[in-house]
Amino acid sequence: MHEGSFEATLKRSKQLAAELEQTPKKFRVLTGDRPTGRLHVGHLFGSLQNRIRLQSLGVPTFIVIADYQVLTDRDHFDSIAENTLQLAIDYLSVGIDPIGEDTDIFPHSHVPELNQLLLPFLTLVTLSELDRNPTVKEEIQSAGLKRINAGMYTYPIHQAADILFCKGNVVPVGKDQLPHLEITRTIARRFNEKFGQGKQVFPEPQPLLSQAPLILGLDGSQKMSKSRNNAIMLSATAEETAALIKKAKTDSERRISYDPVNRPEVSNLILLASLSTDRDPESIAEGIGDGGSGKLKLFVTEALNDYLRPIREKRRELETDLGFVRGVLRKGIEGARAVAIETLDEVRSVMNMNI
Amino acid sequence: MHEGSFEATLKRSKQLAAELEQTPKKFRVLTGDRPTGRLHVGHLFGSLQNRIRLQSLGVPTFIVIADYQVLTDRDHFDSIAENTLQLAIDYLSVGIDPIGEDTDIFPHSHVPELNQLLLPFLTLVTLSELDRNPTVKEEIQSAGLKRINAGMYTYPIHQAADILFCKGNVVPVGKDQLPHLEITRTIARRFNEKFGQGKQVFPEPQPLLSQAPLILGLDGSQKMSKSRNNAIMLSATAEETAALIKKAKTDSERRISYDPVNRPEVSNLILLASLSTDRDPESIAEGIGDGGSGKLKLFVTEALNDYLRPIREKRRELETDLGFVRGVLRKGIEGARAVAIETLDEVRSVMNMNI
Repeated sequence: MHEGSFEATLKRSKQLAAELEQTPKKFRVLTGDRPTGRLHVGHLFGSLQNRIRLQSLGVPTFIVIADYQVLTDRDHFDSIAENTLQLAIDYLSVGIDPIGEDTDIFPHSHVPELNQLLLPFLTLVTLSELDRNPTVKEEIQSAGLKRINAGMYTYPIHQAADILFCKGNVVPVGKDQLPHLEITRTIARRFNEKFGQGKQVFPEPQPLLSQAPLILGLDGSQKMSKSRNNAIMLSATAEETAALIKKAKTDSERRISYDPVNRPEVSNLILLASLSTDRDPESIAEGIGDGGSGKLKLFVTEALNDYLRPIREKRRELETDLGFVRGVLRKGIEGARAVAIETLDEVRSVMNMNI
Repeated sequence: MHEGSFEATLKRSKQLAAELEQTPKKFRVLTGDRPTGRLHVGHLFGSLQNRIRLQSLGVPTFIVIADYQVLTDRDHFDSIAENTLQLAIDYLSVGIDPIGEDTDIFPHSHVPELNQLLLPFLTLVTLSELDRNPTVKEEIQSAGLKRINAGMYTYPIHQAADILFCKGNVVPVGKDQLPHLEITRTIARRFNEKFGQGKQVFPEPQPLLSQAPLILGLDGSQKMSKSRNNAIMLSATAEETAALIKKAKTDSERRISYDPVNRPEVSNLILLASLSTDRDPESIAEGIGDGGSGKLKLFVTEALNDYLRPIREKRRELETDLGFVRGVLRKGIEGARAVAIETLDEVRSVMNMNI
């Protein structure tokens, strides 16, 4: 995707954000995560808070726990169900509220009618289009697979089913996920052209580009990630959080300043404190002044632990009430299936397959 | 597949045929057709009669009407539902009896739990394995697609779902379909190894190689096929049948003899008469003697029309009772879904996805 078209996408995304505030019920958001582990503060400030914002606007939202997609690039499957529950606990503890009618959380292995959409969609995409998808290429490289499996290869088409089963028209994405969404848009358009006969069966979903700041890893690497052991998990204790921040990489300059370009590690810590306290980063830096990274770290630790305290309390409560968490997922599965059954019936009907 | 292994497959298939007679309830047969048009006498003598034989042995059988697979190499979808009904009528009129508990006929677009199996199965097959599949290669060439769609490419994996959803352990096939079945067997084996932990979740289905003689087209071409206009449809009238046989290609030799190698067209007509009358081809040829192709054609026409008469009567009855035909399909869908739901639940369970 060249920069020109990215600028256009960004502009449309900003218009979309405004429309979501004005007419939330005109939209349906599809978002989700793979159940590969617990969530950390990078997720919290990066995507979860955005979901809560959309929820508070009253935008209907489906959150898919993409369990099958764990297997596209991993061999381990022992913890999928456990990770699914923990992911749901993370969601609930930060304030995603699937009790209301506007949000459904579900693992996609439990919604057969969604997964069936893969069948017609596969026939609408050519191999050369799949070969060109840069995200899949990158994911294949990063997973280090010698031999690519067909699940990884067709993953963008399955993602189209995830989005279109509920006629989702808004998908919160990062820039790197735009090519995936482009395939979904292509599938929606082709399906309508071929089978819709003038009727728009599927919307072409719009990307809602993340405006959230990127949280770096505590080791200074480009991304906070559990596997790199540079992440503060939502489920960590206050002590674990303090120990991680104590070990965080900084620099040798004593005077603290907010300068993300030249002092990324220090600025990342300030950013975490800023997001936790709702104060701007510059004033936090000024407050620490010549206190050095030691004082900064103490400040960030307290700010983050304060911010996470109610979330963690909620988390502990939920961990002792897995029956409730399972009930939330069952309600989500029911909601997703009801919508998927309707969509699949319409799809069969326009494809002249209903007997 | 080299000849040595084909010989071994043929030997096993013959053993399997004997076992089916002795212990029919130990087996579950999966078979089916794409709803691309009505069936002809090539299908009748080639595969339908074999199904009836298995039915009369009491072997539980699922017959899938592969509606999605119409779209892997065709753009037309106007007649899928109509073709599905006509296919069911063809089945019922020749004596396939889905009223008993041993046979279920269903279109696979109506069994979401079957189709969902595509998801885990996709992750068990590499692209290099799909690239090597000769049947897909041939089908792509014969369909003349410039750009292969992903539905065609992953078709052998979807076929594995068709077979394994009911834990089918016997699949009647022609030699050319063996590579497809090999992928199904590989998927079953890998699934068991990876997820089964010593338990055999899926059987490795055995090919039951067709012992039926190949019916040529009336124009002498290698295969009877509706699209080549060289086929006698089950639904044709006696007059249409007579006209088609009158135009059939023969040779200039007056004396009729059964010699498939040197006189394929004449021998094909004799074969049709033989299959219709249960007399051996040589005695039929002797009976015609010097009567030439004219007398042969009259004989074949009468034999075939006699044989097809009750089938065609039944067909006409069924065509006026589409409610009954739809009911048969609905019963099949119900039976297939009950089995598919059970299998999918087991699959989710061993993959640690059940919440």
